[in-house]
Amino acid sequence: MKGAFNDRLSESSKRSGSRVVLALDFSGPHAGRLRAAEKVLTATKKEIAAVKMNHHLLLPFGLEGVRGLVRVCRRAGLPLIADLKVNDIESTNMNIADSLLAYGFDCFIANPFVGKEEGLGPVIERVHEKGGGVVLLVYMSHKGADEGYGLVTDSGKPLYRIFAERARDWGADGVVVSSKSPERIAEARKIVGKGCMIFSPGVGAQGGEPETGAGADYLIVGRSITEARDPAGAVRNLNGRR
Amino acid sequence: MKGAFNDRLSESSKRSGSRVVLALDFSGPHAGRLRAAEKVLTATKKEIAAVKMNHHLLLPFGLEGVRGLVRVCRRAGLPLIADLKVNDIESTNMNIADSLLAYGFDCFIANPFVGKEEGLGPVIERVHEKGGGVVLLVYMSHKGADEGYGLVTDSGKPLYRIFAERARDWGADGVVVSSKSPERIAEARKIVGKGCMIFSPGVGAQGGEPETGAGADYLIVGRSITEARDPAGAVRNLNGRR
Repeated sequence: MKGAFNDRLSESSKRSGSRVVLALDFSGPHAGRLRAAEKVLTATKKEIAAVKMNHHLLLPFGLEGVRGLVRVCRRAGLPLIADLKVNDIESTNMNIADSLLAYGFDCFIANPFVGKEEGLGPVIERVHEKGGGVVLLVYMSHKGADEGYGLVTDSGKPLYRIFAERARDWGADGVVVSSKSPERIAEARKIVGKGCMIFSPGVGAQGGEPETGAGADYLIVGRSITEARDPAGAVRNLNGRR
Repeated sequence: MKGAFNDRLSESSKRSGSRVVLALDFSGPHAGRLRAAEKVLTATKKEIAAVKMNHHLLLPFGLEGVRGLVRVCRRAGLPLIADLKVNDIESTNMNIADSLLAYGFDCFIANPFVGKEEGLGPVIERVHEKGGGVVLLVYMSHKGADEGYGLVTDSGKPLYRIFAERARDWGADGVVVSSKSPERIAEARKIVGKGCMIFSPGVGAQGGEPETGAGADYLIVGRSITEARDPAGAVRNLNGRR
């Protein structure tokens, strides 16, 4: 059922009064990553809206290895997003979706570049049936983003607009749009409407200002929190409460 | 050093007289996947050129969990490719690359859509310094491939040609081009030359014929081998030896 994920996310966001999605991106020796992640998660769990996990943890440890972190999220009522930027064929995407949901994840991020037919279309349907969510990439926050998302097709449309239209037409639960491009956030909003959440990365370590994420529903923040001396305080700052 | 990965791959291919890259894609309950993978790998290790692992194993078990399979590959001298279709920002891509190489993988597949600057450029350099390889997606084998790889930019060029040019210009070790599109394989070859390997998926379960992969250097095959009653025999068939 579409909407179930966003309902849980909105509930969690209201409870904490926060629009921050904590990205558990840890570098350095693998051995210390899980412990560091649990520490930051425990310190911030009442201040955040949701948690995002990427290959930083999922690649070395797998879903089996992050069970402890998933448990902390579920007990705290925090929706959990897998940021795998999924862009494979249908059978593999389905496999990924099933594994994630089976292990307690609520949502994953995918790249609409891979297409709907035998790509993401049937997967989004299945995930919705199971009460999960899918968030699609529309515009990323690194310098090279224009080498992909900024390409203009022969129709005269830039890909990020086409991707926002796909998010709307495919019934995605949300989109990712860089906080460095407030115009892109505004453009995306016009296309996807209000029921599709805008997640905005790039605040902090990547150079964006919290204010520039203003048109977004949620800010995705990693290093400015995980590397802060006071992670909970860092989240409060991002939420405009000092 | 660029070339080190392709040297190892070529050596392995000559030793086995095979151009088949075994894709260890297992569905079904997680518990049985590692055992099933080890069984097929053991049965086919003398008949194949390399091994490819995707989220089917890496997502549930992580690099920690697939150590046993990695060991079998290394003992058999089989190069190991991680098919994560990497398309993230530089810091995350670097993290992924470092983890993979540290755990004994030789190469990974990435999507050039993400761009060079703060995307894949610096990562390819680092991987080459460490003796590993990077293979870029140029054209995939599902119906929706044209919704992405087939898009035509305002320059009049389809993206798959732009991606082949990126593979050449960024010094990628190989490209992935669907075996269902022999014309695309030929086009890609013209662009990337002979030093950049063409890996072709889509033979067998996805509908392509072994013959159609003719212009490719290596065939990526999963289900036609993993689901065969005689996996080694299935590989020999693919290599044209009955």
